This record gives sequence, C-alpha cells and structure tokens, in this order.
Amino acid sequence: MPNNKPRIAVDAMGGDFGPRMVVPGALHAAKAGQAEVILVGDQDAIAAELSRRDVKGLPISVVHASQVVEMDEKPSEAMRRKKDSSIQVACNLVRDGAADGLISAGHSGATLACAMFTIGRVPGVERPAIATFLPSERSHTVIADVGANVDCKPFHLLQFGVMASVLAKTMLGRENPVVALLSNGEEKGKGNQLAKETFDLLRASSLNFVGNIEGRDLFAGNVDVVVCDGFVGNVVIKEAEGLASSMGRVLKGELRRGFFGQIGTMLALNALKRFARLMDYTEYGGAPLMGLKGSCLICHGASNAKAMASAVRMAARFVAMEANSHLSEAVAANIDLTGPRRQAANEQR
Amino acid sequence: MPNNKPRIAVDAMGGDFGPRMVVPGALHAAKAGQAEVILVGDQDAIAAELSRRDVKGLPISVVHASQVVEMDEKPSEAMRRKKDSSIQVACNLVRDGAADGLISAGHSGATLACAMFTIGRVPGVERPAIATFLPSERSHTVIADVGANVDCKPFHLLQFGVMASVLAKTMLGRENPVVALLSNGEEKGKGNQLAKETFDLLRASSLNFVGNIEGRDLFAGNVDVVVCDGFVGNVVIKEAEGLASSMGRVLKGELRRGFFGQIGTMLALNALKRFARLMDYTEYGGAPLMGLKGSCLICHGASNAKAMASAVRMAARFVAMEANSHLSEAVAANIDLTGPRRQAANEQR
Repeated sequence: MPNNKPRIAVDAMGGDFGPRMVVPGALHAAKAGQAEVILVGDQDAIAAELSRRDVKGLPISVVHASQVVEMDEKPSEAMRRKKDSSIQVACNLVRDGAADGLISAGHSGATLACAMFTIGRVPGVERPAIATFLPSERSHTVIADVGANVDCKPFHLLQFGVMASVLAKTMLGRENPVVALLSNGEEKGKGNQLAKETFDLLRASSLNFVGNIEGRDLFAGNVDVVVCDGFVGNVVIKEAEGLASSMGRVLKGELRRGFFGQIGTMLALNALKRFARLMDYTEYGGAPLMGLKGSCLICHGASNAKAMASAVRMAARFVAMEANSHLSEAVAANIDLTGPRRQAANEQR
Repeated sequence: MPNNKPRIAVDAMGGDFGPRMVVPGALHAAKAGQAEVILVGDQDAIAAELSRRDVKGLPISVVHASQVVEMDEKPSEAMRRKKDSSIQVACNLVRDGAADGLISAGHSGATLACAMFTIGRVPGVERPAIATFLPSERSHTVIADVGANVDCKPFHLLQFGVMASVLAKTMLGRENPVVALLSNGEEKGKGNQLAKETFDLLRASSLNFVGNIEGRDLFAGNVDVVVCDGFVGNVVIKEAEGLASSMGRVLKGELRRGFFGQIGTMLALNALKRFARLMDYTEYGGAPLMGLKGSCLICHGASNAKAMASAVRMAARFVAMEANSHLSEAVAANIDLTGPRRQAANEQR
C-alpha cells in the first residue's frame, strides 16, 4: 500500500486513440487528486501530449516503452516478441512494486496474459476473469466473466462469483451482495450442463446466492452479481451496447424525418443521451481483472478521455479498498468448493 | 396442402390470459381471411368468448380438450398424464391431417415435446429448434436456437443454420440469406470450443456463411440468420426484451418527475412506444419450431390478442410457403455435414 495516493501505471499507447485520449484522461484524474499517474509508452508521443497542457506540480511521471501490442496480435506471440511493449512495462512496474495498479485500453487479451504471467495469480485461482459493471435501473451490477474464459468448468464459475461478490462489496459498497447465476430460466433445474452444476456449487458456497436470473432481468437491478462463463458474458455486454446504439440510430433517423417535430427533436435527443449514458458501460471506467496479485483494469478500446479518467479513479479505488486482499480471503474461504484439486478428486470418485 | 386457406389449430388455453386473449386474436386473423381457425380447448370457456362476438360466417370451429398443461409441469409428465390437453389435441389434429399447422402460447417445452413425439421430426434432424425473428434496424433477423437445446454439438448448430436460412428465405423473402455465427469476437478463431468447431462446419456448408457476429451487431440488420445454441440464444432474446423494458421504465420515471415538461412528456412517450414496438419480438407473432414434420409455432406467454393474430397469420404463411418442405430439402442437401451418423464416424477416426 502506498503511504498516500495509489500509483497507477497507465498504458498510454492503448485504445483506438492512443496517447491523444489516454494522456488527457490520466491527467484529469491526477488533477482531481485521485491518483499518482505513471504514463507508460513512447516517451516522445507522451511528451508531445504533455507539452500542450499545463502539468506543473501534477503527480505524473513517464516510463518509456519502445513497443506497442497491435490489436491483431496473438497474446502469446506479443508477450514473446515484444518484451518492451507498453503493456509489459506497465505489468513490470506493478510486479516490482513501482506501481500499485495498472490500466490499459489496449489489447485486452495481451493485458490479461502479461498480467497473469508477470504479476501472478491469487493463490487458489485457476482462471482470472474479467468483471464489468453492468448498468441497471437502480445502479450497477457486477457481471463476470465477460470474456477471459470461454470454456469453463463449474468451479471456475463459482470462483467468478466469489471474486465478483468481493468487487460488489468493495467497489459498490453492497453489504451482503446478492448473487445470481445467468440461465435460460429462473427455476432451479433450468440451464445447460455447466449452469446446472454451477447452481449446486453456488448454493453450497458462502455466497448470498438467490438462484438463476434470466436475460430479461439483467437490467432491473435486483441482484448485485451475475455469474456466467466468458462466452455468454461477452455476448451479453456487447448486446447491451449494441441495442442501445441501434435504438439511438433508429430514433435519430426518425428525428431527421421530422417525425416528432422541432421541440420533440430536442427533448427526445436529451432522453436519448441519458439512455446512452446509462447503458454505456465504459462510462463506469474499467473492467477489473479478478484473481491477479496486482490491481489491473482493462478499458474499452473506444474509451475517450473521460472514460480513461474514470478508469484511473476506479483503479485507485480498487487499490485503496484493498480489493485484492479481500478477494484472496474470499477465495481461500471457499477453496474447499472451488479448489481445482478438490474438484478433480471429486470427479475421480 | 389445403385447397384454400391454411387450417390453423390454435391452443385456446395457452398464455398468461388463456381464451380471453387467444380467442379474439384468432378471430381477428379469421376475419382478415388469413386462415381457417380451429380453436382447441375447454369448449365452455371458448363458447363464452365466442358468444360475446359476432362470428357468423367466419371460418372457425372448436375442438374440445378437457385438460390444460400448467406452466410448472414437466413436459414429459404433462405428456404422459394429460392425454387430452389442449396442446396434445392440437398436435393430434396436425398429425391426423385435420389441421395444417398449430400455434400455442402455452408451455413451450410441452408444445415442443408433444409436437416432436406426435407429429415427428423431419428426416435427418436430430434436434428440432426454436427460431425467433429478432428485430433489427433494417427489418428482422432469424435467430436460432433460442431455447430448445441448451447443450449442443457443432452439427446441431449447423442444422439450426440450415433450417433458419430456409425460414429467412420463405418467411422474410431473403434471396440468399446471409448467415453468421454468434461469438465473442468477429475474427475467425474467436469462440468457445463449440463455436470454433461450428465455424468450420458452417464454412463447409452450402450456406451463405459470412463468419462470426458479436453481440453488439445483433441489431444492425447486416445478416439474415444468427446461429447459436439454445442457452445463449435464450439469454440473448430475453436480454433484448429486458433492456427495452428497463429503458422504458427509466424514461417513464423521468417523465413523471417532470424532467421533460408537459409537451416533452407526450413526445417522448411516443418515441418510447415506437422503441418498445421495435424491440418487442412478440409483435412479429410466433416463433417457429424448426425440424418438425408439421407447422408449429410457439408464442410468448404474455401475448395479447394482436400478437396471437400475428402468430396465426405467420403460421398460415409458414404453411402456404411450404416452409417445411423446403426445410426438408435443405437438411437433406447438407446431410453429409450435418448427419449425426457421419459426425459420429468423424469422431471415431
């Protein structure tokens, strides 16, 4: 733990816009006094962005990295071939204790791979997972996994639930987070093989498990945590994003045709913006990687400066709340159920 | 084939509202001349609804069924214990050639089970599937499976694609339907084990397969068919429904708080209604069961009279377009790839 503000390494080269969005976003968070920012990436590109702004006295520093992981690279190859990528250097900083956490809007697979191998996993966690804060009618719901693990076993999903429950507690302030399992029906007994077996594990766990949740109730805000595998979770969060965009485009098209008249146009566009903000999960900042020894968050590739600032703030909160330490404890407390070895032993019986 | 209008057996007892919604809906379709309607269910309850309306000269008849499958019954038990349920009797009518097709807003699992065992499967089809017409920015996209098969093998998904492609052609009039596979990334190589193996089968098929589609592109309308397993598909369609409802409730809440003022309220509510209609997949009528020898459609339990009328119309179109005959041909044309036996042989190599 730092003796004052959390030190967050920021992959300055990540995202669709690179330093142009990342640097101002990180500066914004530094200005707000939420974190000490370490910008990692091409020092000239970063310096060019910094030179255009008043940064005097701000808690920022720059660490040079000569390479960038491209979006079409395989994580394993990127790790092997680009030892000096901005992602790898940021991971090294966390590993070496020079940073308390990191964020990247770059290649999420490469970030996960680098972090996993450089920083290491929480003892007992076999599969780190990506959590996201899904907007709901009331507030936000933690959903995991949303893309790290597309083929899972029941004990993986249980562990996602255990870790996501800690996030709901530390990051959202929920006292005894309500946990549900995503399935094709509410009733016990609904689900594919994976969901059915996971149901039993969740029920046996220390979690406040309330049963299955259907797709139609994801946004009602009645639960704090939704558990699913990374294939389904990825489809779910991208569908929410896509549906909001599509609705927006449909409405805009009608406005252009004068369907609602002039006053209606303005009012409906306001409503639309509020909709979009509600459903834009990137607004909430970043998606924590759960199960790593360090505090790592990935951001949407399309993140703008504001989203990057939110992500820095969220990473700082993740560090300040000692989320990883609570997460380790929760994993240990459920290790009898989640431990891969115990699971393997069960299967052999 | 009937020598005039398709004869559609309608489960009058199905849905959240039973005869009260189903009967007027079916009458509406009969009045519009789209089908000859056979109302199946408790004759007194049906007669009570009919007595309140002018039905003289309409092509309707009633077939009594003394039992109703309740929503919490297991399909297998319902089939065994309720030989005279409205669903079973409707299936019998189709089997015996007394009806050309059937629709039910009742227990969808029981409808599928009854239809499968009473009417039988198209040769070569191992797993009948449920298709739905997902609304998109442009028109509609056929998505399957949306709930019949939660654990699938790659050749099942291929067959869903083959059958859904026929639906896109016959029901939506798409010439050479564009088929995509739902996955967690657009790039080839993305996906869980099931999706990856299905990708290769789809590419080798006679379908116009264009690759993976992500959740965010489901509503853009760039493809005609989306293939997925019934677990993911069910989550996807229910999420769309839920997100639209949640957005509606959020907006209504703001309207009530006077956020948009009096004129704005009216205009924004209009926009909201159009949103809801766009995203309410029940508006399109029913969800065809693909792979059965008869024409069977299931409807949303919450279907109102208008939705039931749409479903009758859709069933009539399904019959008139000889969708099942085209579907049989398409399945046969891809049997080398889809046939379970061939698949099993491949696995043994």
